[in-house]
Amino acid sequence: MPSINENFLSMEKNYLFINIAKKVKAFTEAHPDADIIRMGIGDVTQPIAKCVVEAMKKGADEMGVKETFRGYEDSGAGYDFLREAVSGYYKSFGVDIPADDIRINDGAKADCGNIVDIFGNDNIVLVTDPAYPVYVDTNLMNGRKIIYANSNEKNGFAAMPDENVHADLIYLCSPNNPTGSVYTKEQLEEWIRYAKKNKAIIIYDSAYEAFITEENIPRSIFAVEGAKECAIEMCSLSKTAGFTGMRCGYTVVPHELYVTASTGEQVSIAQLWGRRQGSKFNGVSYPVQCAAAAVFTPEGQEEIKVNIRYYQENAKIISSALDEMGIKYTGGKNSPYIWFKCPNNMGSWEFFDLLLEKANVVGTPGSGFGKNGEGWFRLTAFGDRERTKEAMERIKKLTF
Amino acid sequence: MPSINENFLSMEKNYLFINIAKKVKAFTEAHPDADIIRMGIGDVTQPIAKCVVEAMKKGADEMGVKETFRGYEDSGAGYDFLREAVSGYYKSFGVDIPADDIRINDGAKADCGNIVDIFGNDNIVLVTDPAYPVYVDTNLMNGRKIIYANSNEKNGFAAMPDENVHADLIYLCSPNNPTGSVYTKEQLEEWIRYAKKNKAIIIYDSAYEAFITEENIPRSIFAVEGAKECAIEMCSLSKTAGFTGMRCGYTVVPHELYVTASTGEQVSIAQLWGRRQGSKFNGVSYPVQCAAAAVFTPEGQEEIKVNIRYYQENAKIISSALDEMGIKYTGGKNSPYIWFKCPNNMGSWEFFDLLLEKANVVGTPGSGFGKNGEGWFRLTAFGDRERTKEAMERIKKLTF
Repeated sequence: MPSINENFLSMEKNYLFINIAKKVKAFTEAHPDADIIRMGIGDVTQPIAKCVVEAMKKGADEMGVKETFRGYEDSGAGYDFLREAVSGYYKSFGVDIPADDIRINDGAKADCGNIVDIFGNDNIVLVTDPAYPVYVDTNLMNGRKIIYANSNEKNGFAAMPDENVHADLIYLCSPNNPTGSVYTKEQLEEWIRYAKKNKAIIIYDSAYEAFITEENIPRSIFAVEGAKECAIEMCSLSKTAGFTGMRCGYTVVPHELYVTASTGEQVSIAQLWGRRQGSKFNGVSYPVQCAAAAVFTPEGQEEIKVNIRYYQENAKIISSALDEMGIKYTGGKNSPYIWFKCPNNMGSWEFFDLLLEKANVVGTPGSGFGKNGEGWFRLTAFGDRERTKEAMERIKKLTF
Repeated sequence: MPSINENFLSMEKNYLFINIAKKVKAFTEAHPDADIIRMGIGDVTQPIAKCVVEAMKKGADEMGVKETFRGYEDSGAGYDFLREAVSGYYKSFGVDIPADDIRINDGAKADCGNIVDIFGNDNIVLVTDPAYPVYVDTNLMNGRKIIYANSNEKNGFAAMPDENVHADLIYLCSPNNPTGSVYTKEQLEEWIRYAKKNKAIIIYDSAYEAFITEENIPRSIFAVEGAKECAIEMCSLSKTAGFTGMRCGYTVVPHELYVTASTGEQVSIAQLWGRRQGSKFNGVSYPVQCAAAAVFTPEGQEEIKVNIRYYQENAKIISSALDEMGIKYTGGKNSPYIWFKCPNNMGSWEFFDLLLEKANVVGTPGSGFGKNGEGWFRLTAFGDRERTKEAMERIKKLTF
């Protein structure tokens, strides 16, 4: 009989958001008339930009004509037209990434999870806590040792390195999911110094970079000197351009990045990752890549900025309501997430249940993101304007 | 410094088809005027059916309107409309698969590779040789022991189990890539008996099922009794409906399938696989799923059958030419692949070079699929009609 990967047995039975979906489903079945407002899973609600839809339809039409039909991509790393467009996007905020260092994927989550395939299971993995569950889950699946850097009220939920502990792989996410905190340039410089001292690699999740408005907050770790020798970056169009249902993102593995194997051989991380992807991934749908490329045109940028401003305005509505209620929070600025302390010292799931039952609002319990999340709660600004207002009105009326 | 997964060092530097692409690129750069005919990588050439293109465009339009916009799928397992359509497709050839046992993916390759994440690294993996490189590569990446069942001229390149060896995981592919051989119902019954005796799980790749024309050749392992307690099946629309550039497939994990963990716990394979996918996959693009669903409509089935017949006719052209030349082959019937013995006892890569240089035809060296492939060669019927004819004319003119 095949043995299973028993690391799975020590994990939570379900991925966090599947648990939440189940709870909400059970509640709606019991209360079919309840008017639920969903601010839990960080899913967007504004439609895809018109020029992006048109680009996808053009791509679909090309697939229906023999002369323009496209089958497998040669490399599976993405079409040059899209890799060039992503490279140009980086350039627009002052970061120089050659197109060859970019691989197109079906979303940052897959790459954040799959990248660990190329590393040994004996590595010590550093994750800031609370964190996006994928960083932890995908390393638990391989039985790796995970250590945590505490993000908490004291440091504004932006954990910094501890010089006394060693790590080989470091996950950072800024703007942070779930806490909405951001790293300044100086803070990232400190992380890079720490990584270099430990010869570690930083896996940097920049999925929320489009929400950054302040000057001194880098939109990419590669905006910080020295990152190309110690970092990989994953980004996605999910939040930038509403691609949660379209599925397209990109990963930057600098060609400068090498590690030494036990044989003494210098091994290119980009080469290893390409080898993994060559056997386990076949590239992103061509019409989806056409759609993604349209995001990076001047017209596309214009259109998506309207949506981002819409969500930023929602974030202000949420923060203002919390201000009124005297509830402490991080995020909401430079970030679509608002992370707040559950009122009356309630536990995260306790508050989740109360919010669902009394206000019919779905949020995400902070404890689902790690131990430092206990007693905290995440709301997203990705909802509809009127529904966001309505949700905050309902919450303000609650008594705790 | 992070250790790498050193299993990568013992693998070929590149995935087979990337090596071929590099060789062809070098040749075309040296001979810019050469009129290359590509019959190497098994990529299709006929455009996507009109009704499928229209369904994708409709899906894209829905994404551009707030009321019909779709973000994340709740489960990431695929929309019900598509899972039901796949279930109905199975029913059309007499196989009963509930929609809940089906997960939609971005192609069979990804799932064939990723499924091994849920199994222990101590499993003995049985692969028929020659085989699609993904089965071997993805297990080598985890350091698993691989044993081979020989497919060779004697058994018509359709390996059967050896009762004297034990295996825990078994990869089967019928119609076979690369050999074009197919398993009869009786042969699959023998494999299922062997799997049950060994308490093994069969990972069955049915990506080429749409090419089966004969009665006694099952289009799914689930057409054979007892398979639901010992098999998983991966299929894809890549070859069925020309989706190599669209990216959509499906995996069937029967809810009946359980294994016993070392703790004695009965573990559902579907639950484990769902857990893996929950953390590492976010579902397939909505417009791509709309396109895939259209494949299974009566109109879609009508349209794709025209393409399949086109490729089947190409297969006949290739086989007839080989018949004329007195060259032995398998496949071409029930399969888009033709697998033949290199003339004059040439080695596979030797013949590859000769074919590329003298006839400007790209094929796939059999040795790239395993040791039993040495001295054999694969051509695909997925090309253009006139180009296929032209290629075979050029080959017939060669002197060996």
